[in-house]
This record gives sequence, structure tokens and C-alpha cells, in this order.
Amino acid sequence: MEQDTKVTWRNKLHNIIYESNTVAGKIFDVALLVLIILSIVVVMLDSIQSYHQRYGELFHILEWSFTFLFTLEYLLRLISIRKPLLYVTSFFGIIDLLAILPSYLSVFVVGAQSLLVLRALRLLRIFRIFKLTHFLTEIDFLQTAVSSSLKKITVFMMVVLFTVIILGSVMYLVENGENGFASIPDSIYWAIVTITTVGYGDIAPVTPVGKFIASIMMFIGYGIIAVPTGIVTNEMVNATRSRKHGHETCPGCGKEGHDRDAVHCKYCGTLL
Amino acid sequence: MEQDTKVTWRNKLHNIIYESNTVAGKIFDVALLVLIILSIVVVMLDSIQSYHQRYGELFHILEWSFTFLFTLEYLLRLISIRKPLLYVTSFFGIIDLLAILPSYLSVFVVGAQSLLVLRALRLLRIFRIFKLTHFLTEIDFLQTAVSSSLKKITVFMMVVLFTVIILGSVMYLVENGENGFASIPDSIYWAIVTITTVGYGDIAPVTPVGKFIASIMMFIGYGIIAVPTGIVTNEMVNATRSRKHGHETCPGCGKEGHDRDAVHCKYCGTLL
Amino acid sequence: MEQDTKVTWRNKLHNIIYESNTVAGKIFDVALLVLIILSIVVVMLDSIQSYHQRYGELFHILEWSFTFLFTLEYLLRLISIRKPLLYVTSFFGIIDLLAILPSYLSVFVVGAQSLLVLRALRLLRIFRIFKLTHFLTEIDFLQTAVSSSLKKITVFMMVVLFTVIILGSVMYLVENGENGFASIPDSIYWAIVTITTVGYGDIAPVTPVGKFIASIMMFIGYGIIAVPTGIVTNEMVNATRSRKHGHETCPGCGKEGHDRDAVHCKYCGTLL
Amino acid sequence: MEQDTKVTWRNKLHNIIYESNTVAGKIFDVALLVLIILSIVVVMLDSIQSYHQRYGELFHILEWSFTFLFTLEYLLRLISIRKPLLYVTSFFGIIDLLAILPSYLSVFVVGAQSLLVLRALRLLRIFRIFKLTHFLTEIDFLQTAVSSSLKKITVFMMVVLFTVIILGSVMYLVENGENGFASIPDSIYWAIVTITTVGYGDIAPVTPVGKFIASIMMFIGYGIIAVPTGIVTNEMVNATRSRKHGHETCPGCGKEGHDRDAVHCKYCGTLL
Repeated sequence: MEQDTKVTWRNKLHNIIYESNTVAGKIFDVALLVLIILSIVVVMLDSIQSYHQRYGELFHILEWSFTFLFTLEYLLRLISIRKPLLYVTSFFGIIDLLAILPSYLSVFVVGAQSLLVLRALRLLRIFRIFKLTHFLTEIDFLQTAVSSSLKKITVFMMVVLFTVIILGSVMYLVENGENGFASIPDSIYWAIVTITTVGYGDIAPVTPVGKFIASIMMFIGYGIIAVPTGIVTNEMVNATRSRKHGHETCPGCGKEGHDRDAVHCKYCGTLL
Repeated sequence: MEQDTKVTWRNKLHNIIYESNTVAGKIFDVALLVLIILSIVVVMLDSIQSYHQRYGELFHILEWSFTFLFTLEYLLRLISIRKPLLYVTSFFGIIDLLAILPSYLSVFVVGAQSLLVLRALRLLRIFRIFKLTHFLTEIDFLQTAVSSSLKKITVFMMVVLFTVIILGSVMYLVENGENGFASIPDSIYWAIVTITTVGYGDIAPVTPVGKFIASIMMFIGYGIIAVPTGIVTNEMVNATRSRKHGHETCPGCGKEGHDRDAVHCKYCGTLL
Repeated sequence: MEQDTKVTWRNKLHNIIYESNTVAGKIFDVALLVLIILSIVVVMLDSIQSYHQRYGELFHILEWSFTFLFTLEYLLRLISIRKPLLYVTSFFGIIDLLAILPSYLSVFVVGAQSLLVLRALRLLRIFRIFKLTHFLTEIDFLQTAVSSSLKKITVFMMVVLFTVIILGSVMYLVENGENGFASIPDSIYWAIVTITTVGYGDIAPVTPVGKFIASIMMFIGYGIIAVPTGIVTNEMVNATRSRKHGHETCPGCGKEGHDRDAVHCKYCGTLL
Repeated sequence: MEQDTKVTWRNKLHNIIYESNTVAGKIFDVALLVLIILSIVVVMLDSIQSYHQRYGELFHILEWSFTFLFTLEYLLRLISIRKPLLYVTSFFGIIDLLAILPSYLSVFVVGAQSLLVLRALRLLRIFRIFKLTHFLTEIDFLQTAVSSSLKKITVFMMVVLFTVIILGSVMYLVENGENGFASIPDSIYWAIVTITTVGYGDIAPVTPVGKFIASIMMFIGYGIIAVPTGIVTNEMVNATRSRKHGHETCPGCGKEGHDRDAVHCKYCGTLL
């Protein structure tokens, strides 16, 4: 009987912490999110020198409070789940641990506290809550489009990477190791800054030949930025099309995937 | 009888000020637009130090003239409308008030005059005039495409925001609070400048690891700029398609996808 | 008889200068293009201080030679055309005149010579030659797509312009006329530099609030760059589609514009 | 008999070096790729001043080892192929030679060693290995889309080039050869930096007129970046469509536009 109560108690806790279909579960999720955001804001403000000097003491207390709460949450998660090891080694389990470890480490190692910024990773939980809302379709749509264009974008990025290595090396020779082009890695860094049209200007060509090559690189960057856009757009158009069409089933052979304008099944010829 | 004349008089004024289907109404709208633009130009020129010193007196007189005219317009709007409170609390009502308040405030509060730049908001009236012209379809088209892609772009922007917070925090650790990466908010600001490919160069990584992370961020920014473009383009293609093809169903064969101008079903020839 | 010879002579000259369907006409066009490019290269090199000091004399002679040749060409064009006034007032006629005037002006006005850069406008002639080649279809395609999206892009650019005026003005207030935000026009210039993701970095926000507003602007710029791309892409997809489809004529009513999958004419119901 | 063994031996070597359908061939390809990457990393590290001073000796030995191995590979390639001249004059043959020549040249010419960066070109071999994997379709798709949009992008790039030359020249006049606009080529370089939205900020307009023209350029750049994207996206959409829909015509009704996997005509049900 006692065992039973315990199980019920654990089950209830599990529902609150891991699920969001109960009122208590929703409140827990939102409260957790607010806590995460607050803890990140504190870490951010503490990193500003002037605030650190004035409110350092307060921030210190707040950080330990958040750490305590997150530790409590972590323990509750461990207790309420059937297979704790699975949670500990899961993606969110590792992030949850990374969010509390730095505080404890800072007792032994000086400066470990600055790793608290890793708490920002906990923000990813927002997507779990998002998933429960009407954004699910949109996330799903974006995921489909991005994942189906991943291969093409990989090939494209490889081409860009080679262009950047080769043109960066050439610039190193042209600018003769001067004007910020101190080494090949630096020159490649400049090439990336240029081809992605970021253009910090911390390194910029000075020699006429260097400027000419840089101009060509900019034109290349300007032209090829079209490629990833084209890839993603194309996949999205396809995703929309296949979402619209093809949900009709043929009465003859039971196959799906017919065009909107189809009169006969394309597989068996039956009138749709 | 007197009441009648008054009503007619108010009606006429209402037509001139709020509508644009009469000649007087059109003249009023254009004159107002010219006044708005002139008042903004004066505020702009007055903000240039050298002009302020030379023509400050003239600008002062002009600004008060514009304020007087806009106040008159505001009062006329109040008089000529049936429900003045509805206008006062409307979007354009608030903007119209914000355009005249700073001048009066400047009598009591020093520097309040600089809020006159808010007059720029009155420029939004241009869209009301535009709406009456043949640009209506285009505005409508853009609104449809943008509003239907808003949800997807929100999800996307959230992903970008998280990337920026996490990578910005990492850069703060890597560059060790130096080279402009003075605090986490500053580092996040840098991450936004980088991922959007703006790249001011006021903050730029100096350490090799920092440059490497920055390079990755630029590639990410380069790749994901494709996503919002893909979303908007996709919605536009859809909007064009659904504008062309009506959602009407053929009474003969039940097929959809007919052009807007179709008289007969293109599949079976039945009259639609 | 003499009149006749003269007419023939003028006709031949006209064919060579204005048309390109004869061998002589083609040679003339290419030779002219080479001359234009050479004259521009000379103007460019002459603008470099060190070259000007060394080869200034040579450049001077070359520039006068080009001016002489272009003047000769201009006179020949006047002679060989039936309605010289029409040519003089045409787009290319004005450009041709602008290409030779600065040299003559420089005799009377010091520095007028620098206007020689206007010769670059003559490069536009390249498109006339291009038109005769197989690039015609491509130019036509691009023109159609761009011109049909012009209205939408105008509306869009107006929205961007307002955003830039309003946010630029706000930044002037926030940065308090300091850090390069010296006046409202300067702040608007900065806003344009930011929203178009150019990001020179000559003006950059320094205050936290300024950086926050700048971040929002960058996100806006990042998001809305999708809109013109979407517009143009959409028009191109449409142009391609209408090029492919709809060239079939209905045997019943003679109307065109049928979908590829149409079985019956959508206007009269006749079987296609 | 001896001849036969030799041929077999040469054939086997050829299979290993030039093909990748055997285990030995695959190992050779991967090993070669690793060697290439290692040799590039060494050249890169050697270009960093501090590393060069500390490990210069080690890098020197490694570079000669790589040169020796690449020379060996080059000779093996010459031996194992039937027509060595064809290989020597082929694209990859030239690159392979360029990868070993600088080392030998450095014995006679000081500084020739820096040309070793050309080894980066050997990375292009990665695509040969890629081709054998499942990335083939993606590469093929991208190649089709890019090559079919090449003509349109050429026309577009020419328009951009003219805009840049003309507006660059105008800026040279406006900024009067000062503020970094030292010559027309420099001003054109600035115009390219601006229109491609790279925006280094090493040259930036200072005069009000200059800033105004720069603003217009940025808007132009912002607007026309849509064109190449539109072109590529359009071609990709077309490529996908024509990949899906065969160009087969139905023998029953003569209609086109059937899916690749269609067995029956979707309009009349006839067997395709």
C-alpha cells in the first residue's frame, strides 16, 4: 500500500515536471522558463564591470539561489523518472547539469563561475513549451525544409570553404604578409569576413592588386549568396506543394501522391 | 434649420479631412503631406549644428507655424468627426497628437523640442493616400505575404536569438572580456552585428580561437539568411497561385484549381 | 545623279554607324567599344596621383586623341542620320555629347576635365551590341521580371525609408547628438548603412540603449531583405510559367492563356 | 609473358590511383586527402610568424617529406596511365604539378616556397571522392541550376559593374579626391564594397552629398541583391519540376506533365 502511494506520488511529480498537459505541469514549465531567463539576466548584468562593482554582492546571492533551485529541480527530475540514467545522458540532462556545475566548481576553481553563461543553453527548453502551442506546424515546416536542403547546403558550403582557402592564400602572397594579412589563417579569416559580406574592416587590402582580388571576392560572395537561398526556397516550395497535393487516396490501388489536377490514378488508371 | 446647415457644414468638413473622393479632399491630403514633409525637413536641418547657429531663428518660427497648423488640423478633425474619442484613441489620432505636443512641452521642459522628430511618424499618412491609388493591390499583396509568413519568421528569429545569446556568451569567455567584448550584453551585440552580416568592426575578435568562432558565426549567418527569404518567397508564390486559381469547385467533376477568369471547367467543360 | 550617290553614301554610313547587320557595322561597333574602354582606362589611370605625375603628358595627348575621334564619330552620326535633332535629344545622343564636351570645356574652365569620367556612361552602348547576340532573351527575361516587380519594390522601399527616418531620428535622441550621430540626417545615413547590412562602422552606437535599438534595426534589416528577393523571385517564377504555358490557342474561341493541363477551353468549353 | 605481368601490374596501379571502386583505391584516395590536408595545415602554421620561429625546422622537414610523397605520387600517375601527356596537360595534372614545383623552385629562387599555398588547390580532389558517394545527385542538381542561370547572372553582373563604374566615378568628383577616394579605381573599389553590402569602412563618404549618393547606392545594392537570388531560385524550381515531371507525352490524349513514376496518364487513364 505504501509502495502504491509512493508510485502515485512519483507519477504525479513526473507529470508536473516532464509533461505539460496538466495545469500544474504548465505552471511548472512557465515558472522554470522565467527562472532560467532571470538567471541569465543576472549573469549578463554581472558581466558588466560597473554593475559588478555596485551589485556584485546581490548578484552573488541570486546566482547561488538559482543554483540551489536548479539543483533541486535536477534532483526532482532524477527521482521522478523511471530510468534516471537515460535522463542524465540525454541532451537536456547534460544541459541541466552544465547549468549548475559551474557554481559548485567556482568554490574550488577560480573563474569557473564565468561558465555560468552556459545557462543560456537552458533556453532551448522554450521549444519544448512552443511545441505544445500552435507553433508546432511552423517548426515542423521549417525543420523539413532545412533538413531536406542540408545535403545541398553542405556541398555548397564546401565550395565556399575551398574558395576562401585558395583566395585567402593568394591574398597572403599579394599583400606580402602586411596590412593585417599576417599569416595564411588570418588571410582566410579575412576572406570569410569578405565573402559573407560581413566586412569588419579590421583587415582590408591596401595594394591595388589586393583591392582587385578583394573586389572579385565580393562579387563572388554577392553572386553565390543566391545559392543557399535558392536551395531553401526550393525545398519550401516543394514542402508546401506536397503538403497541399497528394493526400487523396486512389480507390483502385490505394496509393497516394496524386497531383491536384489528376483525373485518373497515375499508377493503375482508375478514375479518382 | 440652423442645425441642418451645421450638420451639412460638418459633413462637408469631414469629407474634406477624412475622405479623398472629392477634389477638395484630395487637395487637403496632398497639402497636408507637403506640410508634413516640410516640417520634417525643418526639424532635420535644425539638427545640423552649423545650420542651427545660422538659421536657428527662422527654424524656430517655422516650427511654431507648423505646430499651429497641425493644431488647427487636429481641432478640425475633432470637430468634424461624430465620435471624437474614437479618433483621439486611434493609431493616427495618437500620432497626430504626438506631432504637436513636443512644441508646447518645450515651453515648460527644456529639450522637449527634440521630440519633434516624432513628426516623422505622420509620414505614415502617405499610405492612406497610396491606398486610394493603384498601389492598393501591391500593398495588399505584400501584407498578405508578410502576415502569413510572420509565424514562421517568429520561430526563425527565436532560433537566431538563441544562437546569438549562446555564441555571444562563448565569445565573452574566449576573448576574456577584452578587445571590446567587455561584457556579455556587448558580446551579444557583437554576435548580432556579425550574424546579420552588418559587421561594423567596432568590436572584432583578436584571438585565434575568437576568429575561428567568428568565422563559424559568419557561415551560420550566411547560410540562415536563406531561411526568411525562403519563407517570404514561398508565401508570395502561394499568394500568387491562390490569387490566380480560385478555390471554386466544378459542379461537373468536382475538381478545383480553376483560373479566376474561367467560364468553363478546364477538365470536363462544364459551365462553372 | 549626284544626289543619288550622296544618298547611297549616307545610307551606307548610316548602316555602318547605326546598324550592326553588316560586317563593317560590326567592326565599327567593336572598334568603338574598344575605344570607349581605352578612353575610360586612361581617365582612371590619370586620376591616380603617382601615374598623373609620371605619365600626365602622355595621358593628356591620349585624352585629346579620344576626344577628337569621338567628336568625329559624333559629327558622322549627325551627318548620316535623317533627323539629326532626334539623335541629339535622344538618350544616347546626350551621352555622346557629354563624352566630348568636358575636354573642350577644360580649355576655358579649370578642372572641367575631371568630368571626363562621364565617358563611363558610353559603356551603356555595350547593351546595344549585346542585344544582337544570344543574350537578348536573358535581358528580356530580366527586364520583364524587374519591371513587373517595380511597383511592389517601390512600396517596399517606401516602408524601408520610413523605418529608416523614424529609427534614425530615435537614435539621434538616444545617442544625444554624440558618437557620430551629429544630426538627424547623419543618424538617418547611419540607419541606412545599418539596415542594408553594409555597416561601415564610421558611425556606431556606443550607449547601451543605442546598441539595443541598433540590434533591433539589424534584425529588421535581416528579416526584410527577404521581401525584395521574394518579390523578384516570384515574378521570375511567374514569367517562366507564363512563357511555358498558355501559348496554345483555343480552336473554338481563339483565346490563349490556357493551363498546361487544361482539357477544355476555360472560356468556351471547347475541347482543346 | 613478362609484358603481360607488367601490364597487369600497371593496370592494378591504375585502378588504385585513378579509380575508387576497389578497397585499395578507396584507401589510396582517403590517404591522399589526409596528406593534402596535413600539408596545407603545415603551410598555414608555417606562415604564422611565432610558430615559424619556434618550429621552422620541423615544418621544413615536413614540407620536404610531403613534396617527396607528392612527387612519388605524380610519377606513379605518369607511369600507370596510358597517355601520360593527357594527364600532364589536364586540369588536375597541372594542379598536381603546381603542388610540388614550389619546393624545388625554392632551392634556386628565394621565397618561391610561399607558393606552396597553391597546394590548397589539391583540395579540389575532394569532389572526385564526393562524386562517388551519395552527394553526386546534389552536386549535379547545383551544377545544373548554376550553369543554367549563368547567362542571366552574367548580364546582371554587367549591369552591376556599370553601376559601380559610373557611381564610383561620380563619388570621386563629389568627394574631390579626398577622404580615401584618392583615385577613380579607388572610388570604384569603394563602390563595390558598398553595393555588395560588405562595407569595410576603410573608405567612407564624409561630405553630405557623398553620404546621400552612398545611401542611394546602398538602397540599389539592397534591392538588386534580389536579382541573382531570384535567378538561381527560379532555375532550381524549374530543375526540380522537370526532374519530377517527365517530358513524356501521353499516347492517348497528347498531354504532357506526367510524373516520373506515372504508369497511366493522369488525364485520360491511358497506359503510358
